[in-house]
Amino acid sequence: MILSDPGPFSQIIGYPLGKRPGKPRDNGLTMVIDKGLGYEQLGDILEVASPYMDVVKFGFGTSCLYPRHILRQKLSLARVYSVQTCPGGTLGEIALTQGVYDKYVERCAKLGFTAIEVSDGTIELDADTRLYAIETAKRAFKLVISEVGKKLDHTADVRTYAQQVVADLGAGADYVVVEGRESGENVGIYGDDGQVDTSIIDDFIHLLPPEVRGKIIWEAPKKVQQVELIKRFGQTVNLGNIPPADVLALECLRLGLRADTFALKIHADDK
Amino acid sequence: MILSDPGPFSQIIGYPLGKRPGKPRDNGLTMVIDKGLGYEQLGDILEVASPYMDVVKFGFGTSCLYPRHILRQKLSLARVYSVQTCPGGTLGEIALTQGVYDKYVERCAKLGFTAIEVSDGTIELDADTRLYAIETAKRAFKLVISEVGKKLDHTADVRTYAQQVVADLGAGADYVVVEGRESGENVGIYGDDGQVDTSIIDDFIHLLPPEVRGKIIWEAPKKVQQVELIKRFGQTVNLGNIPPADVLALECLRLGLRADTFALKIHADDK
Amino acid sequence: MILSDPGPFSQIIGYPLGKRPGKPRDNGLTMVIDKGLGYEQLGDILEVASPYMDVVKFGFGTSCLYPRHILRQKLSLARVYSVQTCPGGTLGEIALTQGVYDKYVERCAKLGFTAIEVSDGTIELDADTRLYAIETAKRAFKLVISEVGKKLDHTADVRTYAQQVVADLGAGADYVVVEGRESGENVGIYGDDGQVDTSIIDDFIHLLPPEVRGKIIWEAPKKVQQVELIKRFGQTVNLGNIPPADVLALECLRLGLRADTFALKIHADDK
Repeated sequence: MILSDPGPFSQIIGYPLGKRPGKPRDNGLTMVIDKGLGYEQLGDILEVASPYMDVVKFGFGTSCLYPRHILRQKLSLARVYSVQTCPGGTLGEIALTQGVYDKYVERCAKLGFTAIEVSDGTIELDADTRLYAIETAKRAFKLVISEVGKKLDHTADVRTYAQQVVADLGAGADYVVVEGRESGENVGIYGDDGQVDTSIIDDFIHLLPPEVRGKIIWEAPKKVQQVELIKRFGQTVNLGNIPPADVLALECLRLGLRADTFALKIHADDK
Repeated sequence: MILSDPGPFSQIIGYPLGKRPGKPRDNGLTMVIDKGLGYEQLGDILEVASPYMDVVKFGFGTSCLYPRHILRQKLSLARVYSVQTCPGGTLGEIALTQGVYDKYVERCAKLGFTAIEVSDGTIELDADTRLYAIETAKRAFKLVISEVGKKLDHTADVRTYAQQVVADLGAGADYVVVEGRESGENVGIYGDDGQVDTSIIDDFIHLLPPEVRGKIIWEAPKKVQQVELIKRFGQTVNLGNIPPADVLALECLRLGLRADTFALKIHADDK
Repeated sequence: MILSDPGPFSQIIGYPLGKRPGKPRDNGLTMVIDKGLGYEQLGDILEVASPYMDVVKFGFGTSCLYPRHILRQKLSLARVYSVQTCPGGTLGEIALTQGVYDKYVERCAKLGFTAIEVSDGTIELDADTRLYAIETAKRAFKLVISEVGKKLDHTADVRTYAQQVVADLGAGADYVVVEGRESGENVGIYGDDGQVDTSIIDDFIHLLPPEVRGKIIWEAPKKVQQVELIKRFGQTVNLGNIPPADVLALECLRLGLRADTFALKIHADDK
C-alpha cells in the first residue's frame, strides 16, 4: 500500500544498494520484537514503517499480560498493515511443558495471531516433540518459524544445528531463526559485546544446502550485527528481534542509505 | 481493574512461577522511571501495563520542565490507573539545599503527586535533616520512600547502610530504595558492566532484621539485574528505575514467562 | 510559547546551574536525532519537550522511507513548535555522489525542511565540492550545518579539522558538528565505551579562534558524554544526536536538575 507512494525523494535519489520488493516477500524479511507496545504506539509505528515490517513477534510471554481486547486490537491492526504476528517461542515451550500445546495453538489462532514460533530456548526438545510442535502449528497456521542455536558457539557441533534446520524445514517450518536473544549479547553467534562470530556463521552456512540458506532468519537486535550480516549476505538477509524504533534505521542499512552500508557501495565503485 | 480481565491465555497456560496479587500490594512492587514521556505515551503504556506498575517516578528534576497543565494531566492519568507518582529524589535534595523543602512538599501535593522520595544521592544529609525530610514528607503523603546506597560498595560500611534503613523506616518511610541510578552501572551494588555484586547484597540483607527485608526496593534498570534479584529473592522482590518500555518484559520475568526465569522452574522440576 | 508557562515549581525551586534563554537561541542548542518516530509520537514529544529542542535531524536516509504526506506532516508539526528540521548528512552525500545535489536541496525545501547538514561521513569531499555543497545549501536555507571529525582521533591532524571548521563557517555554515555517530562509540572523540577523549577535545578547541568555539555542536548521544561536555563548556554547549526520549533528561543536566550536574553546584559552593 504505502510502497506505491512515490516517496519523498523519488526520481531524485537512487538507493545505493538498490530497491527492494514490496510485501509479501520471500527474503529480506524484517522480524520485529514487541516487548509491550501500547495500541497507539504500535499503530503509529505501523503507519510509518509497516512496508518494512514482515513479522511482529510479541516477545516472551507478554501475550498473556494484555487485557484480551487490547491484544486482539493490536493483532487486528497488524493485519490491516499486512504484518504477520506471532507470540514468543517461550510461550509455546511453556505450553509444551504443561501438556496444553494443542489448546495453545488453537487459542493463538482464535486471538488473531497469524504465525507460530517453535523454539527450545529453555527446555530440551526431543526430536518427536519438536516434530509434533511444528506439525501441530503448521496445521493451524500458514507461517511457522522454528528456532535453533541456543548453544551455537565454539563448543557446539555446528553440524547438528545445520541438520536441525533441514529437519525443521522438512517438518513444515517455513523459516528457521538462529537465536540471538533480545539482548544480542553472549549468546550463540554473538560475543559478550554483541560482536558477530563470523567463523561460526561461515561454518554453519556452508553446512546448509544452498536452497535452504535463504530460509534462515538471524536474530540481530544490535546495529553492529545488522551491518555485519548485511555485508555478508546482502540486503536480502532475513533479520529478527529488531526493536520497533529501529525499523527505518535498519531499512536504511539494507538500502545503503546509512553510512555503514553506503560505504559498501562507495568502496565497490572505487575498485 | 484490568487484572480482572481473564487474560488472553486464561484457563490454558499457568504461570511457571505462580500468580501475583493485584494492586494495591505490599510486595513485588515495580517502580517505573519516567524520563519525560508525553501525555499520550504515558496513557498508552498505562492502558496495557498499569496492573504491573505500582509507582511512576518522574525522574531527576524533569517535573520542573513540563508545562504545568501537562504535568497535572499526567499525574491525574496515573491516578486513574491506580499508579502512585513521585518526583525524583534529586528535586527534593535541591529543595533542601535551597531551604524550601516545606514549600516543595506542599507544591508536590497540590500538583497531584501521591508519594515523595527522600534521597542523598548528591548532597550530604545529616541525621537531623534526614529525619526532618522524612517526617515532613510523611505529614503530607501516605507513601514516603527513602533512598540509601550511593556509596554502597566494597569500601563502604554495609552496617551503616543497614542501620540507615531501620532508622528511615522508624522515621516514617514506607520503603527504602537501594540506589542503582538510571544507568545501573558502576554504582553501589552494580559493577561497570551492570553485573550485580551479590556478596554486598548478601552482607547487606543479612544485617537487616527479617521483618524489614521486604521494605527494600532495588533499583534495577537492566535485565541482568532484574533476573539476578528475582533469582535471589523471588517474584515478590521490589524493583525500581524500570524503563517504561520494559514493564511487561519484567512482569514476564516475575511470572516465569521469559526464558531466564522459566528456566528456574524447569531446573527446580528436574531436581 | 511553553517557556512562558511559569512551570510546576516556579517561585519555589531555582535551577542550580541557572536559567536558560528561550528559543530561538544562539547557543546551548539541543539537536535531536529522529530515527523514525511516528507522527503521533513526535507530536507527543514536542508537546512536552519542544522548548528544549532546537533542531530535529531525520537521521540517515530515513527521510526517503516515509510516505510523502507523513513526512510533510512531521515537518509541519515541528515548525508549529518552532523546531528546525534537517535530513541526515548521509542523504546529502548520496545526492552529491549521484550528481543530483541541486535537485536534492530544492526538494528538501519543498518538503518543508528548514535546515541542511553537509557532511563527509562516508565519502571524501574535496575542498571545491565542500564549498559548493555549503553554498548551494545556504542559498536555499537560512540554517546550514556542516560536519567534521570522522577521523578525529589520536592519529588525526587536529589542526586540519580546526582549519576545516573555520573554512566551513566562512563558506556559509552556521554551525559545525563534531561527529559522534548515532552510537557515540569508537568514533572521533569517543572511545569504545563512549568515554570522551578530553585531550583531543582540548587540543581541538584551543586551535579554534575564540569567537568560533560557540559554533561547534558536539554529537553526544550518551549521558556520560553530555555530562563531560557540560562540565567542560557549561550549560551553553551545543549538543547533537540526542535521542528524543532523552531531551528532558539532558535539559535537567544543563540546569543542574540531575545528580551529575547538581553536584557541580554543590562542589562549587563547598569551595
